[in-house]
Amino acid sequence: MSVLFKDVLALDGFMNSARPCDILVSDGKIEQICEPGTFSGLTDETLEGRGRLAVLPGFVNGHTHAAMSLLRGLGEEKPLMEWLREQIWPVEAKLTPEHIYWGTRLALLEMASKGVTCFGDMYFEMDQVARAATEMGMRAGLCRGLIGDDRSKLEENAALFSEWNGRDGLISIQLGPHAPYTVSPDMLKAITAMAKEIGAGVHFHFLEAEWEKQYLSDEFGMSPYEYLEETGLASAPFLILAHCVWFPLSEMTPFKDRNITLCHNVKSNLKLGSGIFPLDEAYRLGINISLGSDGAASNNQLDIWDEMKTAALLHKGVNKDPTLARASDILRMATYGGANSLGFHQTGRILEQWEADLAIVDLDQPHYVGVDPDNLCCFIVYAGSSADVKSTMVKGKWIYRDNRFCLADRDEIIRQSLRCRKELVDQSL
Amino acid sequence: MSVLFKDVLALDGFMNSARPCDILVSDGKIEQICEPGTFSGLTDETLEGRGRLAVLPGFVNGHTHAAMSLLRGLGEEKPLMEWLREQIWPVEAKLTPEHIYWGTRLALLEMASKGVTCFGDMYFEMDQVARAATEMGMRAGLCRGLIGDDRSKLEENAALFSEWNGRDGLISIQLGPHAPYTVSPDMLKAITAMAKEIGAGVHFHFLEAEWEKQYLSDEFGMSPYEYLEETGLASAPFLILAHCVWFPLSEMTPFKDRNITLCHNVKSNLKLGSGIFPLDEAYRLGINISLGSDGAASNNQLDIWDEMKTAALLHKGVNKDPTLARASDILRMATYGGANSLGFHQTGRILEQWEADLAIVDLDQPHYVGVDPDNLCCFIVYAGSSADVKSTMVKGKWIYRDNRFCLADRDEIIRQSLRCRKELVDQSL
Repeated sequence: MSVLFKDVLALDGFMNSARPCDILVSDGKIEQICEPGTFSGLTDETLEGRGRLAVLPGFVNGHTHAAMSLLRGLGEEKPLMEWLREQIWPVEAKLTPEHIYWGTRLALLEMASKGVTCFGDMYFEMDQVARAATEMGMRAGLCRGLIGDDRSKLEENAALFSEWNGRDGLISIQLGPHAPYTVSPDMLKAITAMAKEIGAGVHFHFLEAEWEKQYLSDEFGMSPYEYLEETGLASAPFLILAHCVWFPLSEMTPFKDRNITLCHNVKSNLKLGSGIFPLDEAYRLGINISLGSDGAASNNQLDIWDEMKTAALLHKGVNKDPTLARASDILRMATYGGANSLGFHQTGRILEQWEADLAIVDLDQPHYVGVDPDNLCCFIVYAGSSADVKSTMVKGKWIYRDNRFCLADRDEIIRQSLRCRKELVDQSL
Repeated sequence: MSVLFKDVLALDGFMNSARPCDILVSDGKIEQICEPGTFSGLTDETLEGRGRLAVLPGFVNGHTHAAMSLLRGLGEEKPLMEWLREQIWPVEAKLTPEHIYWGTRLALLEMASKGVTCFGDMYFEMDQVARAATEMGMRAGLCRGLIGDDRSKLEENAALFSEWNGRDGLISIQLGPHAPYTVSPDMLKAITAMAKEIGAGVHFHFLEAEWEKQYLSDEFGMSPYEYLEETGLASAPFLILAHCVWFPLSEMTPFKDRNITLCHNVKSNLKLGSGIFPLDEAYRLGINISLGSDGAASNNQLDIWDEMKTAALLHKGVNKDPTLARASDILRMATYGGANSLGFHQTGRILEQWEADLAIVDLDQPHYVGVDPDNLCCFIVYAGSSADVKSTMVKGKWIYRDNRFCLADRDEIIRQSLRCRKELVDQSL
C-alpha cells in the first residue's frame, strides 16, 4: 500500500522545526520526502493537506499497564499504599486473561485516537496484550511483570519472547522484573542472565518513591548505580528504568553509553505524590529519555500529548526558568526516545527509509492560527492536544482514520469493557 | 425557550458527587431537577441522555486577555522580560480595535467549544471585547487594563461600566489597574474611589513574580496586605487578584470576609517560571478561588479543563501528598468560584432557580468506562478533557451544540484572525 501526503507540514527528523512537503509512504516506510507539489508518481491513496495538516512521528507511551484502564478511578486521592492495598491489589487479584484482553483493547482505543503508535507495557497474561496489540495494528514492547522469586514466571516471560519477539516487525519482548522491593537481587541476576542469553531488554520500576533509595542502602548496602551493576541490570542488552524519580544525578553519567533509558512518567508521579524527576539535568547528560503515562489508575489518561505539555510546563515552573524543557526536546522524548527505548531504532522520526509510524494533525482549528514551520513544535506542545489528531498510521497502515478506528469495533470494545469492569468492581468493592 | 435534559448524570450543587436526573431549563434558568424519567411537561426541546451524558456547570475562565490569541506562539521559551520587550509589547502596540475584536472572537471559539461559559478579561478596546462576547452569547466580566497615571483611561473604564454593566444580565464591568509596578498608589486610590462610587469590582495583577514583594517593600515600605489596604483595593466592592503567587499565606486570612478572590493561573505561572501558588493552604482558609488561563501567549491554551487537571496534579506532586487538591474542590474553583469572582452569584452550580450556564459532556467514550455518580468529579478532572464537551449553554441558550457553533461563523472568524495575525506579525517581526 502506498499513501501520498500532499502539501503537508512535517516535523523535520530532529524535531527542531518543520517543512512544507509531500511525503510518500510505501510498503510501511517513508519512501520519499520532497518539495510540496513535486511528487508525480502513482499511489493507492492521496491525502490532500493544503498546508493545513501536520505530519508528526507517532507518539510512544514508554511505560504503561494498559489493562489497568479497567481499574480507572478506583481509590482516588488516597495515599499510595492505602490505594494499592485496599483498591488496586484486591481487584488485580481477580483479573482473568479475558479481562486483560478487553482492558488492553480499551486502552488501545484511547491511545490510537491520540496518535500513539507504540506502547511499552508491563503486566501479566501478556499473550493477551500481544494479541490485542496485533489486532489493533499497534507497535509494542511488552514484558511480563515479575514479582517474587518464582522462576516459572521468568520462564513464562522467556516463552513470551520466543513466541512473540519480532512478530510482524511490530512486537518486541522485554523481561519485566517489577521493582527492587518485590524482586530479590538473586532473582534479578537470574533475570539479567536470561536477558543476555536470549538478547532481550529489561523493563524495571526503579526509584519511583523516595524511600526506595534508603531501602537499597539499608537492605543491600548499595547505592542505586551499584545496585544496577551488581544485579546485572546495567549490562542487560538494554534497560528501561520507569519513573526513576530519585536516582541521584551524580550517578547518572554512565547511562548515556549503556543503552539505558529513563522513562519519565510526569503525571503519575505528580498524582501519586511521588516527586519530580530532574528532567532537564538528565537530558543534558545525553541520556535517552522517554515519556510514559503509567497505568490509567494513576494518571488517569493514556495521553502522551498531555505528558508532553505537563512535562514542558512543570520543569519550567519548579525551576523558575522558562527556557528549560523545550518543546523540541520534549517531542524527541515523546517519539524517538520512546521507540528507541523499546528496541525500535528505525521509527519515531520523519526520515526517508524510516518506518512510517505517523500521527496526522488537523491544523485548521482556532488554536493553530499563527502556526508556521518554525514554531510548529511549540504549537504542538503548548497549544495542541491529542484531540487534534485526525489519523494514526503504524508501519504504513492506518489504525485510526478521520476519527474512526480501522481495525477495532469501538462500540463492542466499550461494551465488553463495561461488562468486565462490572465483574471486577461489583465482586471486589 | 425550554430544554429538557432527560436521564443525565448531573453534578450536585456542591460538586461532591453526581446524580442521575431529568433537568428542565426554562427562560434561562434551571427550573426543575427531578428523578430520571419523571418529568412529564411539554418542552421546546428534549435531549436524551440515556445515562451517558453528564451535565456540568459551565466553566469560568477567571483571568485572561482573550485577544492575545492573535499573539500565540510569539517568543516562546524566552525569559519573561525579554519575551515582553522583544515580542509581546511591540506587537501589542500595533493592535487596532478590529484586531481586538477578531482576536477575542477567535478566543471565544476556543473557549465555547471547551465548555467555558464565562470569562474575566483585562485588555484594551474593551467595547470590542464586550461586542464579541455579546455576539457569541457568552457571559463576561470585563475591565479596561489601566497602566500609568492617565486619568482618561480610567474615565474610559467608567464609560465602559455605564455602557455595558448588566447588559442582558451577561456582562459585568470591573475597573482594571494593571499591576503594582505599572500603576502608582495615588492612581490606585483614584481607581478604588471610583470603584466604590459606581459600585464596580476591581481586577488587578498582583505578585505574579517573586520580585514584586520586594518592590512593594522597597518602593512603598509596605507588606502586600498593607498595600491592598492603603490603596483602597482591599475595600473595593469586590477584588480579583490574578496570579497572587507570592502573597504570604500569613496575610491571607482577611481575604475570606472581604470579597477578595485569588485567581490561580497554574499553567501560565509554570510556563513563565513565575512560581507555584499555595493552592491548598489558600483554599483551606476559605478564600474564594477561581482558575484562569491568562492570555494565549503565555499558556498557550484557553482551556479550564486543562487548568483543573494541571492544578490537581501539580499541588499533589510538589507537596508529595496525593490527598491534596481534590477534584471536587478544583471543580468548585473552575465553575462557581470563577462566576462568583466576576459578580455573577446565581450561576456556576446546578441548583434549581440558578441561571443555566451548562457544559454537556459525552460519557460514551473509552476513558469513561467505570464512571458512576460517586466518582464523576474524579473522572472529569483526571480522565476527562475539554474534547469531551459536546455542547455549551449560557443562560439557557445554546452557544455550541453537537460540536458546532450556534452564534458564530467559525470559518470566517479563523479567516479574519489569520489576516489580523499576518498584519501584526509581518509588520513587527
